[in-house]
Amino acid sequence: MSQHAVDELVKLLDLEPIEVNIFRGSSPDEDRQRIFGGQVAGQALVAAARTVDPGRPVHSLHGYFLRAGDPRVPVLYEVDRLRDGGSFTTRRVVAIQHGKVIFNMAASFQVPEDGFDHQAEMPDVPPPEDVPSVRDRLAEAGVQLESWMDRPRPIEIRHVDWALATREAALPPRQNVWLRADGRLPDDPLIHTIVLTYASDMTLLDTATLPHGGSWFSPGMFMASLDHAMWFHRPFRADDWLLYVQDSPSASGGRGLSRGLVFTRDGTLVATVVQEGLIRRLRSGS
Amino acid sequence: MSQHAVDELVKLLDLEPIEVNIFRGSSPDEDRQRIFGGQVAGQALVAAARTVDPGRPVHSLHGYFLRAGDPRVPVLYEVDRLRDGGSFTTRRVVAIQHGKVIFNMAASFQVPEDGFDHQAEMPDVPPPEDVPSVRDRLAEAGVQLESWMDRPRPIEIRHVDWALATREAALPPRQNVWLRADGRLPDDPLIHTIVLTYASDMTLLDTATLPHGGSWFSPGMFMASLDHAMWFHRPFRADDWLLYVQDSPSASGGRGLSRGLVFTRDGTLVATVVQEGLIRRLRSGS
Repeated sequence: MSQHAVDELVKLLDLEPIEVNIFRGSSPDEDRQRIFGGQVAGQALVAAARTVDPGRPVHSLHGYFLRAGDPRVPVLYEVDRLRDGGSFTTRRVVAIQHGKVIFNMAASFQVPEDGFDHQAEMPDVPPPEDVPSVRDRLAEAGVQLESWMDRPRPIEIRHVDWALATREAALPPRQNVWLRADGRLPDDPLIHTIVLTYASDMTLLDTATLPHGGSWFSPGMFMASLDHAMWFHRPFRADDWLLYVQDSPSASGGRGLSRGLVFTRDGTLVATVVQEGLIRRLRSGS
Repeated sequence: MSQHAVDELVKLLDLEPIEVNIFRGSSPDEDRQRIFGGQVAGQALVAAARTVDPGRPVHSLHGYFLRAGDPRVPVLYEVDRLRDGGSFTTRRVVAIQHGKVIFNMAASFQVPEDGFDHQAEMPDVPPPEDVPSVRDRLAEAGVQLESWMDRPRPIEIRHVDWALATREAALPPRQNVWLRADGRLPDDPLIHTIVLTYASDMTLLDTATLPHGGSWFSPGMFMASLDHAMWFHRPFRADDWLLYVQDSPSASGGRGLSRGLVFTRDGTLVATVVQEGLIRRLRSGS
């Protein structure tokens, strides 16, 4: 358990109100060169949700990462109240640093209603207790971690399908990952949505590198999220285990596209995620 | 062939420039109650592309439908030049009618580059020549068409998996559809991208109704696109047959989510699509 790291994440996602539609977020005190994309997407969703009746939960978001976030200065989030309708509320949020937009997002919120119900089936995978954590796998393989990876992390990740030892081989473009906040979260459903938004950016793009024998920890690989889209289908807790079923239908033109389905342990589909990212293998010396 | 209808579609997608970042689009002279979503998404993409160097093709778009479009008045498209970067250009477009935003979209364009390449495999389905058109299927089943459906259409659609006669039964939430512009298009690659954007909104959401024994032509069904996201992977022509492989991972809360992969006839994956839509079965009399 990393309750302290989880509490820090919850604090990170609790923005400071500046004006009715303007919020400010900070970054953790870590030596990262750019802000983690999931943090910006999560904070932007908090900003949007702060301007919406809590009786209308978020059901989707679509964002573009435009510029690398600077972790040394705060991020300003400005909300545009696009529409307040009878059933749906739509918001646009821009994240600003140094006078420039670093992230542009729109999100939609809906009064709960009943309707048709169906969902994809969860694949049959080993339970999280039988899968080693990514930390253990990396340590076992002797991979040198950047210092920010080597401290207690708020999200625990367990890769079902691959071990570091076999990771450089060409694998099919799909992976199953168990993840959860590594400590107790407050009960507010919005927190769980935001923590999943944060966590959903951690492994998804890497799925697109699986057939190519490289990954985010290979030397000379440059990867950056280009966009991030999520749809929330049913309630869930992000401090219970979630299975993140990911595949990559395509990579081309320096970009990889990955899709994810998120299930609770009992097989309920709670979210769908799609992300495209830039994947470049830099030539040595460049 | 409906070359005239295709020419009309190309004309529809050719916006009138009003100012550097402002364009105006019209709607076809048809008795529809609201503008077809694919038209707004396609026109918005044209507006964005008009502000971008043609040497940077579009690789993705994300849009939200906020209000029903009014086909009796023009639509104004206003482009916000979010970023002009070294490799990527990002635009935001709002579509406005009666002083209100009806559609909010962001799109990303990229200088072509090389990189990793992989793609999902095309399923094995009968060729389009062996599949009746939706028009023939509807006529055969004696379905009463609204008048706008009954004139020559620019997009020809052939449903591989189902016939009207069996459509009311509960079917799995997936369908394969052959589609193409039903006449010759100009060679400009942007036109093909935009025609696919237009056409991709036609059958996708219906996929989510398949397990529930209703469809867009059932009495008392109300369906409306909520969002639309596309990723363009490789070049294609929209006047050659394209296979649209669609599935719906989830429906809940009055919403259905559908995903699509678009292949050329030779099996090349050219686009990925995701859309969520509102699906309500209205009680009789309501």
